[in-house]
Amino acid sequence: MQTTRETAAMRLSLELARRGIRGANPLVGAVIVDATGAILSTGYHRGAGTAHAEADALNRLGNIDAAAARSATMLVTLEPCNHTGRTGPCSQAIIDSGIGNVIYAVADDGEAASGGGAALRAAGVNVSNGLLEAEATELNHRWFAARAAGRPFTTLHLAQTLDGRIAAADGTSQWITSPQSLLHAHEVRSRVGAIVVGTGTVKADNPRLNARDENGAPFASQPRRIVMGHSEVLANAALRGDGNWEQVFSHDPLTVLKTITARGIDHVLIEGGASIATAFLAADLVDEVFLYQAPIFLGAGCGSVGELGIGTLDAALRFRLDAVDGDAVRVIGTDILTHLEPLPASTGIS
Amino acid sequence: MQTTRETAAMRLSLELARRGIRGANPLVGAVIVDATGAILSTGYHRGAGTAHAEADALNRLGNIDAAAARSATMLVTLEPCNHTGRTGPCSQAIIDSGIGNVIYAVADDGEAASGGGAALRAAGVNVSNGLLEAEATELNHRWFAARAAGRPFTTLHLAQTLDGRIAAADGTSQWITSPQSLLHAHEVRSRVGAIVVGTGTVKADNPRLNARDENGAPFASQPRRIVMGHSEVLANAALRGDGNWEQVFSHDPLTVLKTITARGIDHVLIEGGASIATAFLAADLVDEVFLYQAPIFLGAGCGSVGELGIGTLDAALRFRLDAVDGDAVRVIGTDILTHLEPLPASTGIS
Repeated sequence: MQTTRETAAMRLSLELARRGIRGANPLVGAVIVDATGAILSTGYHRGAGTAHAEADALNRLGNIDAAAARSATMLVTLEPCNHTGRTGPCSQAIIDSGIGNVIYAVADDGEAASGGGAALRAAGVNVSNGLLEAEATELNHRWFAARAAGRPFTTLHLAQTLDGRIAAADGTSQWITSPQSLLHAHEVRSRVGAIVVGTGTVKADNPRLNARDENGAPFASQPRRIVMGHSEVLANAALRGDGNWEQVFSHDPLTVLKTITARGIDHVLIEGGASIATAFLAADLVDEVFLYQAPIFLGAGCGSVGELGIGTLDAALRFRLDAVDGDAVRVIGTDILTHLEPLPASTGIS
Repeated sequence: MQTTRETAAMRLSLELARRGIRGANPLVGAVIVDATGAILSTGYHRGAGTAHAEADALNRLGNIDAAAARSATMLVTLEPCNHTGRTGPCSQAIIDSGIGNVIYAVADDGEAASGGGAALRAAGVNVSNGLLEAEATELNHRWFAARAAGRPFTTLHLAQTLDGRIAAADGTSQWITSPQSLLHAHEVRSRVGAIVVGTGTVKADNPRLNARDENGAPFASQPRRIVMGHSEVLANAALRGDGNWEQVFSHDPLTVLKTITARGIDHVLIEGGASIATAFLAADLVDEVFLYQAPIFLGAGCGSVGELGIGTLDAALRFRLDAVDGDAVRVIGTDILTHLEPLPASTGIS
């Protein structure tokens, strides 16, 4: 039976988790409390390559003696990991800290990470789980689904007019959205492992598809460029760049994602065009959306999303506003940026 | 030559004006300062039927003696009116207050309201104008344009999916947006003089088109219901209601607006469907937009805006986010509400 204080601390951990960034890793928050329930430290995970929430909370913990550590409790939204990735295992870090009690919300069943709870118990830590498990599961429901399916987490990029157009009738599309929107899109590129575009976009726009800062200089981290489709990519196509690209000769989104997974990449940005966005949406393979809308109307031209096989309103693809990593809707330059994630199945029609 | 203090006070008047509501009347703000430039009172206009900005500022002014009034200055964004409408003339109220100095930003050339500056001067008030005139003109650029054209101010209502659909392929459209969006739309209905819909919407949805609160009870103020088009409105159509409706047998937006002006109505809500919205947008007869977007995709079905005769991106209809009366973009229920106004011609492509 968990106490009200423990529940409140776990709620705080969930709130902290929402400050992170969706992608290769799940959102995780952690709070360390003393025996009276007073907060000693907090932490959260800021995205792939940064400290895990548990390590972040431990890094922020002031010096406490062994007795205080023994009576302290860490409340973390996901079972601490037990493997050495880009960071060391959290289970070992907790054991080393001397913290005597760990409560986690939801178990981590992934092959690579699981076993953290057992490792803690084996080291004499008092471990329990299941506190706010439903909330913690829902927070990362698409990340869990992606991992269960053995595919990367996917982010869909849509840049359109208010009436949902990505190009005018004559095909002109550069630039519908503002420089500030483009910069945000490049920052998203810099944190994914791969970008997917169709052969039509390569032919129409000949994009470089690298991630550039406001001065046009490339970010340190660059995504792999994946072209899906059967048309030939020209020998002088800009995206060939440094050679960190490949073509997947398929129109099937899952086939493309499996190929990307085989490269060890676990976060993908779906950039377009419309037929690619439509294919991923129709296959329920979009885990989050960044929708950039310019305050203009075209009335004609290519739509951002094509035929999804939906005949009636009740069958619409339902998303919800996602306030993770900032406001779900915000003004960006002259545009509107909306962050969305699919509505969890259990929530039903809102 | 205006002082820095006067410019700062006029800027505040402009900011106050933006707290108002667009519609039948222009946005106006007013600030009263003493001889040292210290602010004695502020006011702004909250929409048709409420106090004008000057009256609002005078109502909030504490008791000051005749000498203090004589040395005080009112800075107002629009020339004070000189006519008795639903409120008395502001020129007379200012004269009665004993305030010795008035600076207004932009002249009011309308037949009904003009002459306020002259009336003040005739009463011995020290009057000047033109301070921040460009900003004050731009603030109400569409209201001035509507009045110059002898037509009502128009508000366009659009309720759609993220991909710009107002109905699914089978025609189902109720309810794409959330109850909170519907309530906001009804509040907008309650403050306009008329609502315009097409015969197609009447046939498809048989709407009542009255303004109802969250309990479904009608607001005290109800708009006149205008049906535009040639198809017959059925004898049992719900919108006939209390008889406060009429049909305008035209597909021309300007003809419809002129008919409405002839009824003494100066603010109109364009509710739909798509062909009506398209006609008003194509004719540049939309002065503001409330865009309600549900976080869903349909991929097919009727678009919110049809053919505008725009072939290329440079010719797009350009709007800008409008933070008048609250944030330009906001979360409303599960939806996104965006408030827009046409980009002023002088601003050019953003």
